Amino acid sequence: MKLWDKGIPVNKLIEDFTVGQDRELDLYLAPFDVLGSMAHITMLESIGLLEKEELPSLLNELKAIYKQAEDGQFVIEDGIEDVHSQVESMLTEKLGDMGKKIHSGRSRNDQVLLDLKLFTRDQIRQLVDATNDLFKTLLSQAEKTKDQLMPGYTHLQVAMPSSFGLWFSAYAESLADDLTLMQAAFKITNQNPLGSAAGYGSSFPLDRQMTTDLLGFETMNYNVVYAQMGRGKMEKTVSFAMASLAATLSKLAFDVCLFMSQNFGFVSLPDELTTGSSIMPHKKNPDVFELIRSHCNKIQGLPNQITLMLNNLPSGYFRDLQIIKEVFLPAFEELLSCIQIANFALGEMKIKENILEDDRYRYLFSVEDVNRLVQQGVPFRDAYIQVGKQIQQGDYQPSRQVNHTHAGSIGNLCLPEIEHKMKQVIDSFNFKGMDSALKQLLH
Amino acid sequence: MKLWDKGIPVNKLIEDFTVGQDRELDLYLAPFDVLGSMAHITMLESIGLLEKEELPSLLNELKAIYKQAEDGQFVIEDGIEDVHSQVESMLTEKLGDMGKKIHSGRSRNDQVLLDLKLFTRDQIRQLVDATNDLFKTLLSQAEKTKDQLMPGYTHLQVAMPSSFGLWFSAYAESLADDLTLMQAAFKITNQNPLGSAAGYGSSFPLDRQMTTDLLGFETMNYNVVYAQMGRGKMEKTVSFAMASLAATLSKLAFDVCLFMSQNFGFVSLPDELTTGSSIMPHKKNPDVFELIRSHCNKIQGLPNQITLMLNNLPSGYFRDLQIIKEVFLPAFEELLSCIQIANFALGEMKIKENILEDDRYRYLFSVEDVNRLVQQGVPFRDAYIQVGKQIQQGDYQPSRQVNHTHAGSIGNLCLPEIEHKMKQVIDSFNFKGMDSALKQLLH
Amino acid sequence: MKLWDKGIPVNKLIEDFTVGQDRELDLYLAPFDVLGSMAHITMLESIGLLEKEELPSLLNELKAIYKQAEDGQFVIEDGIEDVHSQVESMLTEKLGDMGKKIHSGRSRNDQVLLDLKLFTRDQIRQLVDATNDLFKTLLSQAEKTKDQLMPGYTHLQVAMPSSFGLWFSAYAESLADDLTLMQAAFKITNQNPLGSAAGYGSSFPLDRQMTTDLLGFETMNYNVVYAQMGRGKMEKTVSFAMASLAATLSKLAFDVCLFMSQNFGFVSLPDELTTGSSIMPHKKNPDVFELIRSHCNKIQGLPNQITLMLNNLPSGYFRDLQIIKEVFLPAFEELLSCIQIANFALGEMKIKENILEDDRYRYLFSVEDVNRLVQQGVPFRDAYIQVGKQIQQGDYQPSRQVNHTHAGSIGNLCLPEIEHKMKQVIDSFNFKGMDSALKQLLH
Amino acid sequence: MKLWDKGIPVNKLIEDFTVGQDRELDLYLAPFDVLGSMAHITMLESIGLLEKEELPSLLNELKAIYKQAEDGQFVIEDGIEDVHSQVESMLTEKLGDMGKKIHSGRSRNDQVLLDLKLFTRDQIRQLVDATNDLFKTLLSQAEKTKDQLMPGYTHLQVAMPSSFGLWFSAYAESLADDLTLMQAAFKITNQNPLGSAAGYGSSFPLDRQMTTDLLGFETMNYNVVYAQMGRGKMEKTVSFAMASLAATLSKLAFDVCLFMSQNFGFVSLPDELTTGSSIMPHKKNPDVFELIRSHCNKIQGLPNQITLMLNNLPSGYFRDLQIIKEVFLPAFEELLSCIQIANFALGEMKIKENILEDDRYRYLFSVEDVNRLVQQGVPFRDAYIQVGKQIQQGDYQPSRQVNHTHAGSIGNLCLPEIEHKMKQVIDSFNFKGMDSALKQLLH
Repeated sequence: MKLWDKGIPVNKLIEDFTVGQDRELDLYLAPFDVLGSMAHITMLESIGLLEKEELPSLLNELKAIYKQAEDGQFVIEDGIEDVHSQVESMLTEKLGDMGKKIHSGRSRNDQVLLDLKLFTRDQIRQLVDATNDLFKTLLSQAEKTKDQLMPGYTHLQVAMPSSFGLWFSAYAESLADDLTLMQAAFKITNQNPLGSAAGYGSSFPLDRQMTTDLLGFETMNYNVVYAQMGRGKMEKTVSFAMASLAATLSKLAFDVCLFMSQNFGFVSLPDELTTGSSIMPHKKNPDVFELIRSHCNKIQGLPNQITLMLNNLPSGYFRDLQIIKEVFLPAFEELLSCIQIANFALGEMKIKENILEDDRYRYLFSVEDVNRLVQQGVPFRDAYIQVGKQIQQGDYQPSRQVNHTHAGSIGNLCLPEIEHKMKQVIDSFNFKGMDSALKQLLH
Repeated sequence: MKLWDKGIPVNKLIEDFTVGQDRELDLYLAPFDVLGSMAHITMLESIGLLEKEELPSLLNELKAIYKQAEDGQFVIEDGIEDVHSQVESMLTEKLGDMGKKIHSGRSRNDQVLLDLKLFTRDQIRQLVDATNDLFKTLLSQAEKTKDQLMPGYTHLQVAMPSSFGLWFSAYAESLADDLTLMQAAFKITNQNPLGSAAGYGSSFPLDRQMTTDLLGFETMNYNVVYAQMGRGKMEKTVSFAMASLAATLSKLAFDVCLFMSQNFGFVSLPDELTTGSSIMPHKKNPDVFELIRSHCNKIQGLPNQITLMLNNLPSGYFRDLQIIKEVFLPAFEELLSCIQIANFALGEMKIKENILEDDRYRYLFSVEDVNRLVQQGVPFRDAYIQVGKQIQQGDYQPSRQVNHTHAGSIGNLCLPEIEHKMKQVIDSFNFKGMDSALKQLLH
Repeated sequence: MKLWDKGIPVNKLIEDFTVGQDRELDLYLAPFDVLGSMAHITMLESIGLLEKEELPSLLNELKAIYKQAEDGQFVIEDGIEDVHSQVESMLTEKLGDMGKKIHSGRSRNDQVLLDLKLFTRDQIRQLVDATNDLFKTLLSQAEKTKDQLMPGYTHLQVAMPSSFGLWFSAYAESLADDLTLMQAAFKITNQNPLGSAAGYGSSFPLDRQMTTDLLGFETMNYNVVYAQMGRGKMEKTVSFAMASLAATLSKLAFDVCLFMSQNFGFVSLPDELTTGSSIMPHKKNPDVFELIRSHCNKIQGLPNQITLMLNNLPSGYFRDLQIIKEVFLPAFEELLSCIQIANFALGEMKIKENILEDDRYRYLFSVEDVNRLVQQGVPFRDAYIQVGKQIQQGDYQPSRQVNHTHAGSIGNLCLPEIEHKMKQVIDSFNFKGMDSALKQLLH
Repeated sequence: MKLWDKGIPVNKLIEDFTVGQDRELDLYLAPFDVLGSMAHITMLESIGLLEKEELPSLLNELKAIYKQAEDGQFVIEDGIEDVHSQVESMLTEKLGDMGKKIHSGRSRNDQVLLDLKLFTRDQIRQLVDATNDLFKTLLSQAEKTKDQLMPGYTHLQVAMPSSFGLWFSAYAESLADDLTLMQAAFKITNQNPLGSAAGYGSSFPLDRQMTTDLLGFETMNYNVVYAQMGRGKMEKTVSFAMASLAATLSKLAFDVCLFMSQNFGFVSLPDELTTGSSIMPHKKNPDVFELIRSHCNKIQGLPNQITLMLNNLPSGYFRDLQIIKEVFLPAFEELLSCIQIANFALGEMKIKENILEDDRYRYLFSVEDVNRLVQQGVPFRDAYIQVGKQIQQGDYQPSRQVNHTHAGSIGNLCLPEIEHKMKQVIDSFNFKGMDSALKQLLH
């Protein structure tokens, strides 16, 4: 086998294989690992597993490491396999054996579980904020363009009149539903696993309610076997919600790419948001939206990928779970940048005026004209035949008048109602409890 | 091409292909289609699109059809392509042209959207009820077996003491989180799409708030383009939540199958719940749990399957969406039967006594013994070395005492807290609003 | 639990759950089950496990049952759980205890394995035939339309000249590659599993080479543990190949739906292949192609669905495998009808003439014009700037001349080469060996 | 929007988003990009698009760059966006404007297509070699352990006697089928796309057969539209075959993890291949095989992930395709290391002796004993009842004799036949054609 022919000692190869990408991936978790340790030792002191005077020294050092991590200065040194070992090594260098005490009453398993949850809570908040920004841009564009008509398609066939106001705000309302799912994922995440140890609890009299409060969790994963079972399940659940957001963005991006084709020509982007061709001087390609679409389609594969790694494993910890980090941790950044770039690009997008004047769209108004006859007393079937005959004979002259008045229609976009829906969802996250707890812990 | 060689007229083949399984699948939707029509025409009368005297006649006939559907008597006759046409045909047979008026101000698109939402609300309720039954069985088994110890595994290696109480209640708590996700899916479902017509609204002055109230929806999908976009998205979202429930059941089933192997022998089932072999007289196979596992693994593929049909379609209706019904509608029954069978079988399961007396499990207690030394004042590292040496020399005598006291541990299962968690989730569904509205509509 | 409250005896419910859809699904397998039994007993007789005079009686009855199955007359009677029991019951009714002997030296496991393989071989052949028909239609359309230019798009932006000949034959060549994958799947399928019994072989001196030859298999799955492992693996592998074909069809269908939009208007279908709208008299919707696309997208989810059911199961038979039949067996019919309908519809499709005369496509020729200048000696960068400037100033007059001559370009479609590629792939299936063996067995 | 608040100029952010991970990922492609350019310019010279004297200078410089890439010295400099630009920049620095000529008659699109194919061919060969090594280890272990019996399980229930020889060689035969699928993927890959330009060919008289021969391709993707359609399709097809290999490894790894559990105890690994626990001194965890399993389960998600990015895109290039590289390129390394580590670990694995002496396995022999009675003339049903009664009454004494003789059974593993199967598959790859062409190009 070639790998071992190169004279590399076997242990090194095995070690490389088992450590995998942990050293890079754990950098995502560093500040959260420190926060978790701070809460844990505060609790340990309260149940007598740490001396009263040791606590402040340890907390001070941990705060310093937290600061380093926040500033991007935290590194995992050569020969150290993960974030937990690095933090312990930094503590013992400063404080001696006292530094090792932070692990009492914990196992690597509940420590990672906790890190992942604290990290995920934080990332969800960033996604929610960015989504809300995008939501506002969509609503503002909808308000601006509410009178600009465009063709509405079914089967990609010209069907009935629509408007840019309707189009923009459709995606805004979609985001509100996506965040409803994200809120459930957040609720499932926001439960304290600490104290579950290796998945079967501990014989120390740990005060799990105390760490729950210190870290601002809404409640705890009570059952310790279930707490461990949450590894992977939490990631999958959050990735469902990410997939939902990603699907909204992907569809929006597809629409934009279609509308930018010369065969539609409904919207355009400033030059710095398009790319040209090295051989075709006339090209203005919507690469940005194609990339958003593709990233978001990739993210939609995430829940299935995690399922494949999790599925058909009996209860109890397995090292398999480590690999989930490789696909889960970087996905937040990927989705976040898509949301932010979409927000920027949609804000800059220009809408073509008077699209419906093009003759190919005149049949859009046929239903309107049928309905108008109905409202004037003509039976529906007769009205339908009458307009249908005009179309067949080429005599059809659309009235080009649109009088939609009901809730959610062209004439009544219900933007305040949609805004209210979003506000309710965002309020339900209650990030404040988490914020004030962490602030207190770090003060 | 062979298909057409057989002398079958082309139109028939095209028709068969386009109708597909709609005639069978629409039977799932029949009662809900009727309910939707009842609400719709009540609203039509209120805005003057139906005569005052027509409404009671139509409502009466629709109630009669609803009763038929409830009793399993509703059929889609030969030559009629779907449920909507069948209902219209029944109405016009009784009431003449008046029967056709139920379609004013609607399109096939928002009618199907509505049917799917009413159906899905109802199915989610059934899943929630069955899940709650299973939850109760798990808690009751946990209470009964809280003192029966079993090995806890990590990496499938004997690790630390666990208990059947812990094992049963772990899955109970898992179900509570699954229903949190389901509740979000229900919330996204429980919004009225009626009035969106073909996805671009209508020029009739429809009163969408009225149908929202009549059908007991929490709110409406305001934007009509978004209402249409909800087709497929709702199904995918609900299937995420179904996948989460299915994953819990699948893992539980895997554990049971493992624990029934002669190499574990932890649990057994009564004979009628196992199957034998035609050639091996000693076999008692856990087929029931293998089938639960496989069905649930199949259900976990549902979100991805729907995503593949939905993804990269621009906005607006496409016939593609019809095929989603083939995989979505029957999935409820599939999951429901798994939950019900699991509930029954777990209630009947027998637990082996005194499992831990087997010598292979004695190392389970090593951590306990290390911790006991630590609590007696021995430094952790020394205690660890002391017990480790005993193990290596074959002198290790486990104390076999387990004193776990913290929240969620063997000695403190927190069943009331887990029960409370579940109660809160179930209460948040608020099925009552939907029930009382439908009752009123049908009174 | 409600299910059992209804007074239905438990055993019945468990039985229904475990039998599942087997009785319907086994009808797909009936003729193949009979063929397998014929080969098996012929071999049994040769090794002395069946009397010389019993063989002809059994073979005659089995041939009669085969005929029934071929004629669609075979039914699984009430109270009989699967195809194997039904065949045995029919034999014993006619021949008494002798009928039971067909099971000697077999288990239900290798019998199902064999049925699935014989069924799958047959279905693959039907797919290959239909694919070849579609291939011929595409090539014939390519030949007819080789001079009809259309715009070539990149990023859905008008890019360079293409032709319908190029477009049709692109999909033809794609089918050839799809069949290359299918041929590998066929090869993996076409290996005899009979004799593996329950996955650990038999103590009878079975002559596995004999059944391999009698059933026209290319070789056998030697290792009996691997033969059993092939359950699910074969289905997944064949579904990979089906997914590849489905992806080609899905993309083709997307193109057609796009090209039928009024914004493109490149192609049209006769009325019986489009559907109208009950409210919009001008609509001609490409429902047929949308349904092809959606079915094919669903089929692309099949490998993943099977993977979810198979994955992380240790070696050895599990009842889980039964559920794979629910998604695998009907998929052939689904894909086959898509191929056949696509073949028919593409044959009827009309191409719009002179598409490129529309002014929006004139920039298509800019690269041609740059290249022409280059071939006249102007350096590329100068030529590019020159044409670019004309475009910017609105002076650009395309020469509208296309002189592509290289292999595979507009002017040189290489249809014979593509045809040759397809022929080679189809020849490599070598269906003849399988045919002549089965014919001999049934003679 | 925060991203732009930080004072970073917009263009930079858009650029970062569009370039993405291309700069790192393109390092995988560097040597292949150079090879492609060498073949392309050799052809350009032959059709007069390059001066006779320019060719040797360019080839020499390209060979030097190729050497750099092979030695790991090739870097993409700051401000250069991809491998193609870097190579051009290096050439023009040395040779002036002549360096730019390598792009005549090509587009970025067919250049990337070509790079991906050359890279993939090379990676497939590495996978095949490593798989063959693993195959040999499995066969050699099978030969060594052919007499060591172990329990065979169905439903994870003790069923019938098996052997380690059977178990090892089952996975060997599985690898042969996996390579059959890989060979089809290789065949689909091994076709020249060069000359398709942006997907619509070129007006230059390119000699595509010449580049096909120079690069050792078996044939070409004739149709230029199809050549472009192959982007993504090739990756998906190869990932199907990788998923098949990964599934074999994942199942093998699951078995090993199970067999290493104290509840089985069939196999063990040397200490350097297991990991311990920081709190449980008795633990020897099979992390290596858990990681193999998880990586391989992740790889099984690859085809679906690519499908999600590709699906429902019409024909023609889209920037979406770029993101496929992020998941496709690193997957080879991931799978290769799993194969290599598995090979090493399986070679080191120790088998427990005399497993079947444990009393829990005695029923394994019941079928043998039934069959023995049958062969002695007792009717099957009577023999079955007789043994069954003994088992029920506790009198059953297994004879513990196993006389399996048929092909593929414990007593006749058919290792030479399995070896022959593998040899045939590997020979069919015909890597020699590709090797000698590339050697000639670089000589």
